[in-house]
Amino acid sequence: MHSVQFTAETSADGVRERDFTMGEFSGMLWSPVSPSASGSGRAPLVLMGHGGGMHRKAPAVTGRAQLLVAGCGFHVAAIDAPGHGGRPRTAHDEQEIAVMQRAMAAGEPVGPIVVRYNAHLAERAVPEWQATLDALQQLPEIGADGPVGYFGLNMGTAIGVPLVAVEPRITAAVFGLHWPDALAEYARQITVPIEYTLQWDDEHIPREAGLALFDAFASNEKTLHANAGRHKELPRFEADSAVRFFARHLDGHLGRAVTSPA
Amino acid sequence: MHSVQFTAETSADGVRERDFTMGEFSGMLWSPVSPSASGSGRAPLVLMGHGGGMHRKAPAVTGRAQLLVAGCGFHVAAIDAPGHGGRPRTAHDEQEIAVMQRAMAAGEPVGPIVVRYNAHLAERAVPEWQATLDALQQLPEIGADGPVGYFGLNMGTAIGVPLVAVEPRITAAVFGLHWPDALAEYARQITVPIEYTLQWDDEHIPREAGLALFDAFASNEKTLHANAGRHKELPRFEADSAVRFFARHLDGHLGRAVTSPA
Repeated sequence: MHSVQFTAETSADGVRERDFTMGEFSGMLWSPVSPSASGSGRAPLVLMGHGGGMHRKAPAVTGRAQLLVAGCGFHVAAIDAPGHGGRPRTAHDEQEIAVMQRAMAAGEPVGPIVVRYNAHLAERAVPEWQATLDALQQLPEIGADGPVGYFGLNMGTAIGVPLVAVEPRITAAVFGLHWPDALAEYARQITVPIEYTLQWDDEHIPREAGLALFDAFASNEKTLHANAGRHKELPRFEADSAVRFFARHLDGHLGRAVTSPA
Repeated sequence: MHSVQFTAETSADGVRERDFTMGEFSGMLWSPVSPSASGSGRAPLVLMGHGGGMHRKAPAVTGRAQLLVAGCGFHVAAIDAPGHGGRPRTAHDEQEIAVMQRAMAAGEPVGPIVVRYNAHLAERAVPEWQATLDALQQLPEIGADGPVGYFGLNMGTAIGVPLVAVEPRITAAVFGLHWPDALAEYARQITVPIEYTLQWDDEHIPREAGLALFDAFASNEKTLHANAGRHKELPRFEADSAVRFFARHLDGHLGRAVTSPA
């Protein structure tokens, strides 16, 4: 089993940020500077998947991580997806990205290509996330039996849905902004609480496609948030909503008071 | 113009509750015990419509009012709908209620009857709400130019959608749990921010019907919250979400800090 190798550390505004490597890829771990109020020093962990073309330090990832650490005292981990964040691209990666870029430049639908390529990336990324979770649970401030959530939109959903379907340690997840084609069969295996976000006027993902993916989750507790607007116009308050979702579902395990971030 | 006549007052947990009468009907006004931090003593007002068969002091109304007062320092007003809360029923009311009860007892669809009867009640209730708003805006702690919201589900939506469509003083609204048949034409006239709640497994309101009503609102800012569960299984955290919605949309007007209640 790999263990995380910390390579750099900074702290600001109550958040401790540590770069780490795990074999072939790099990650970030955000943690509260002060030990948790529970006395055990342990806190829940949220795994955060970035979007396509992004990386573990993308602003959306960093911003959401800071909300979760500052608002809930949780740990948050992100890793670069295969072919992302400076990781080498395979010939297949290069080919698929070129096809996607041609479609975008021509104003043609990118959905079928994104679905296919993201499904391929998920096959490579799921075992990496599982190895990362194994390694992070060796850290005393996280531990092997603490609550774990997953938060990822766009490509982060394409990787996260198959991950949560096979990973019983993850007990709550926030997903959104993807197609059902390659994911619905995994969603039907997921029974943990989920929050799913879609954009009502998404120019890439048909409304019915987003609703179909939400419908596929077998969870008794599931919530859809649909906002007016195009694909990239997801309102910022949805990040706050995700934080409250994780506070509801992960925090009770530790019996700590929930502090709402906004 | 009628003015509100206060008939009783209690205070508990930082919330001042005043019973009032307005001509033929009764209402409640919940207010913060401490004056607002803005210095003006004024605070936004949320009008709250109750559900069918309920009244101005129904537990759902009282609970949401306390969240809004304690969490945001807002005023909240509720009035008994026509034929509700001890108000006299007309022969038409009695007839429609009997038809509804027979359908429910027989396990037949109640939707067409609820849609028809609620539309009738809305015609009577909208002018009553407008007169109530006129009167409440005469109170110095509310004032004639402060922000006003509307919050009502079920029958509270059947009355609220026509009200908000014709009432420019209402600048944000939370609706949910109704059919589009009598309301979509009013929704298409509404452009203020709205939050709309539906139940994904509603046994009375078909999923497509709820989605169609949400779709009809002309608002640039609108959010759908759909939760797994049957008609009466709306999660309690949706009340907290509505409070945050009003804090976002009404509070900025006064420039006060927003305190999140949960």
